[in-house]
Formats: sequence, C-alpha cells, structure tokens
Amino acid sequence: MKVKASAPGKTILVGEHFVVENEPAIATAINLRAYVVAEERNDNVVEIISDNLNLREVFMEGSENRNSPLYPIHHAVRYIMERAGLSKGIVLRISSEIPVAAGMGSSAATAVAAVAAVSRLFGVKVTKDDISRAAYIAETIVHGKPSGIDNTVSTYGGVIAFRKNEGFIRLKGNFTTAFLILADSGIHRNTGSMVKKVLKLKKKYPNIMEPLYHAAGRLAIEAGKAIEMEDLEKLGELMNINHGLLSAIGVSNQKLEELIYRARSAGALGSKITGAGGGGFIIALCTGERVEEVKNALKDVSKRIIVTRIENEGVRAEDLD
Amino acid sequence: MKVKASAPGKTILVGEHFVVENEPAIATAINLRAYVVAEERNDNVVEIISDNLNLREVFMEGSENRNSPLYPIHHAVRYIMERAGLSKGIVLRISSEIPVAAGMGSSAATAVAAVAAVSRLFGVKVTKDDISRAAYIAETIVHGKPSGIDNTVSTYGGVIAFRKNEGFIRLKGNFTTAFLILADSGIHRNTGSMVKKVLKLKKKYPNIMEPLYHAAGRLAIEAGKAIEMEDLEKLGELMNINHGLLSAIGVSNQKLEELIYRARSAGALGSKITGAGGGGFIIALCTGERVEEVKNALKDVSKRIIVTRIENEGVRAEDLD
Repeated sequence: MKVKASAPGKTILVGEHFVVENEPAIATAINLRAYVVAEERNDNVVEIISDNLNLREVFMEGSENRNSPLYPIHHAVRYIMERAGLSKGIVLRISSEIPVAAGMGSSAATAVAAVAAVSRLFGVKVTKDDISRAAYIAETIVHGKPSGIDNTVSTYGGVIAFRKNEGFIRLKGNFTTAFLILADSGIHRNTGSMVKKVLKLKKKYPNIMEPLYHAAGRLAIEAGKAIEMEDLEKLGELMNINHGLLSAIGVSNQKLEELIYRARSAGALGSKITGAGGGGFIIALCTGERVEEVKNALKDVSKRIIVTRIENEGVRAEDLD
Repeated sequence: MKVKASAPGKTILVGEHFVVENEPAIATAINLRAYVVAEERNDNVVEIISDNLNLREVFMEGSENRNSPLYPIHHAVRYIMERAGLSKGIVLRISSEIPVAAGMGSSAATAVAAVAAVSRLFGVKVTKDDISRAAYIAETIVHGKPSGIDNTVSTYGGVIAFRKNEGFIRLKGNFTTAFLILADSGIHRNTGSMVKKVLKLKKKYPNIMEPLYHAAGRLAIEAGKAIEMEDLEKLGELMNINHGLLSAIGVSNQKLEELIYRARSAGALGSKITGAGGGGFIIALCTGERVEEVKNALKDVSKRIIVTRIENEGVRAEDLD
C-alpha cells in the first residue's frame, strides 16, 4: 500500500518580529504544497528521498546522520511511530512546490505531510493537533525554538492569528479574490541575526519601542478584523503601515523598498516585507485583475516571483493503491 | 543709510507630521541664509526687489498686489513699522541661499531678515520675539496656519525643540562635527495634501495611530537628549526609526527610499524624509569624513544636493554705511 499526503506552505501577513515580544501576528496558508508518498519497507529503516534536494538518505536506528537536512523529517516520523508502539521500515518520497529557505514554511509543510502520510499508512489514529505537534518537534531541530506558526498553518490551512504563549485562532472569511504575490529580493536573509538586531534596538530604545510594538499589536488585531470582514483594501492599507513599522525597526533595505513601491505603483492593495527582512521576499496583496501588472512591475528587479492564493485546506492524506 | 540683515533657513530633524497632533519635534537652523538690504525711500512706498525670483514689486498703501509672492514680506514690514507709528518709504533687496519651496524655511528666513533690517534702519527697538512674531504674521499669509517653527528657528538659530501650544526650547550642544546633507527627490511636494492624507489615515485607524504617534513623540524626546549629549550616532539611529514611522503613515515613495538607503549605505549616520514627504528633500546626517561619499552616492539620483551644517547664529543685522 502507498499513501500520499500533502500540506501547504505559509506566508506571514502582518506582525513578524513584533510577535517575538508577545504581540499578535497573522499568517496564511498558500496554495503551494509539499507532497510526501509513504510506502512500507520490510525492515525498520527509514529511507527518505527528496526530489527537490536531489538527496536520498537511509536512517538506521541508533546510527542516524543527524546533519542530514532530512533528519528532522525522520525524527518527526519516528516520534509518531514510537508513540504508536510501531517499529517499522518505511520509504518516504518528498516533492514540494514550496521554495526552500524562503520563509514559506517548506520544512514544516514537509514534516506535516510526512507525519500524516506515515500515520495513515500504518492506521495510527492521530488528530490534527498530533500532526502539528510532531511537525513542531521536527521544526525545533531546524530552527531551534520556532514559534509554532509554520506547523500550525500547514496543518490547519486558512488564515491563522497567533500570539506567543496564547495559541492560535483560525480566522473566518472567504478569500477567493485575494492574490498574494511573493517576490524574491535575491538577498540572502538570516532570520536569527535579524531577530537579534531588532531586539538590540528594542533594548536600546525601550521608551520608543514599547508604544511602537503596541501599535504593531493593534495593527494585527485590525488586520484580523479586516480579514474576517473580507475587506482586502483595508488589509492592504494595514500591510503598508506594518511595512513602515518594519522599516522603523531596521529590517528593510533599498532592494526591498524598490520591490514594495513597484508593487504598490502597479496597483497592489498593499505590500511589505514578509518574514525576517534584510533580504528574502516581499509580499504584495492584490485582486485578480492586477496580478499581471504587479508581476510585470516586479520582474525587472526580481528573479523569482511566485503568485499564490490563500489556501483553505491544510494537511490531507489519501491512499494511492 | 543702508542696513543689511540675514537669517538662516531650517530643516526638520525629527517629528514632522506627528507635530500636527501635538507630539514634540526638533528642527535646526542651517548655514544657508536669506539676506535683506534695506534703504529708506522719500515716500511711503514699500519697494521689494528679489534677486532670486527676479522680481520687483512696489507696494502702495491701500492698493497692494496681494497675489505677489513678495506681499507677505511687505505685510511683515508694514506691521513692524505701524507698531512703531512709522509711515515711511523703503527699498528692500532680497537675496537668498535657501532653496525656495523646499521645506527649508526660505519664506520665514526672508521675513525675519526683512523685519530685522527695517527695525534697525529706523531705530525701532525690537526683541527677537518681536521679529519672530512679525515674521509669523507673514507666514500666515504664505502657509495658512503655520506651526511657527520656521520663524522661530530662523530668528534664534541653533537646534529647537517644539510642541504645539507649548512653545519652543533651544537645545544645548555643540555641533561642529555634524553635516546635514539635503538631497532633492525631484518630486514636487504638496505639504497640505500630505498633511490631509496623514490625518485621514490617523482618523481611520485611531487604535494603531495613537501608540504610533506616541512612539514618535518619545522619539523626539530621545533625539533631544542625543543632541544635548552630542551623540550623533544615536541621533542618526533615531532619524532612521523616525523615517520608518513616516513610511508607516504613508508619506514615503520609491525615490525617497532610494535616496535614503543610498545615503545610509555610503556611511550616513542616519537618513530620512525631511518635511511633508511625498517628494521634496531627504536629509542625511553624517560626519565630515563621510560627506564626499554620501554626496557621491546621491548625485546619480538627485539633481540638487546641498551640504549644510547646523547654524548657531539666528538673525543678525548690521549697518552697511
């Protein structure tokens, strides 16, 4: 028997960085998915093949290669099998539409899909919460102390509001007219060093940063309301304000600004850095009739433009034969 | 007898826009001056010649051309003469180093110098406050309801912190190492429409803007401390944060961002929009050893780059013969 599972990537709509200091933030699943096909092996080895990384790794219990980029997936899969008292061999074949190391939750989506595939293959009863938690464990290996956003959004799909130590709410709303255009600045982003830089600035100017972070938190709450009202224009405006706050905490640069203002000039309802900043991607919100114009405005200055939509479906799994 | 008076232009360091809603702001006099030479005429006509505008206007009492760009100067001069019970004729010759309509207080500096020249010529005893007030009256004709910043900075010189309805404080500090580089975006700025746009956004999102404005106010206070400590690095950092807040309230654009980030990359300690935004000038703070690099980085994208310094001397007047 073969099982196929998939899970979506994510992008942050508002609140990145500010979420580190307990302000709310909002992320959404996007219609790019990671796929995992799982099949049993007649031993107790976990074999993982990644089409995207062009990599095949065999994990034998007790002598795993912990430096492999596939190790976290193996770890999540072992976790779910051990929880069910299983010691089985398995082959996982991964393929993904989600760009790697782009802040789009590629690693979490892959882990979510892998856990779902293995659970279904062996008939292990798991809730979505179980899947998300197993993927979170894989994420701790990749990211140290992740927020839990990526695995949650990937598992549940849709638009998710969250706050550190308080948990997640799935927002209501139907987003059929919204397009999210992601454009790569071509500049390497280093989330860890950006987070450090921002926290240093926050510590240096507490009197300024305290109300600034407060403004960012209130912005996320307004954005949540705009989403539930399906008010894309308002959401776009709030994304623009949010971008200014990200500029204020020092995570923008000339290239990111160029992308952001080109998108706005071409008719995007809003545009901003998405994720840690300093590089990486910008996100532009627009309606269908402006997608081509925004894409055209960005293509001269970005080598990778990805048009996505909000994805309401989280993880799913099915038998292949 | 001839009298020559002069007064400096100004630039805003931090707090523009936020000052409209009662947050503090800081402006500085710059070493570009408006000059006025005054001489008596044997009638009671006020004749004003502007070298910069290439304009000569004769104002006869009761039949003044109120549409003349020189009318406000005439008005301030009449005000000071009437206050002294004088009805005299006068020729004023204006020449100025301050760019016109660039947010650098050209009109206020000219009015301040004109009032000072006329007062000295006729031996009218005036305090600096009197001069500033007369220039303010001229400013009300130019700008409707000005903040009073321009005439105050121009009269007193130095770095001035101010808050609407609360008045002005001249900050201490010696700024011999500070250079302020002003670069023109080449985009026409419309202060009135920008202020309106910002107030509309503020009204739409009061929950967000209230703490955001609060952050801007606290930033101006920190900047005042940095100035009095002569901590240029800190002042630069605060200017960068302030720019992000201006971006958040929607007064930046691609061209302004390009100038701002070019200046920072070339070693400016800080850079931001100065004034209403949407166009106009950016300001970059740097030390002497970086002036050439910053200028070079800006000259490909700005047709007008003005290197200025903080000017401690306000209005001054002297007899020419």
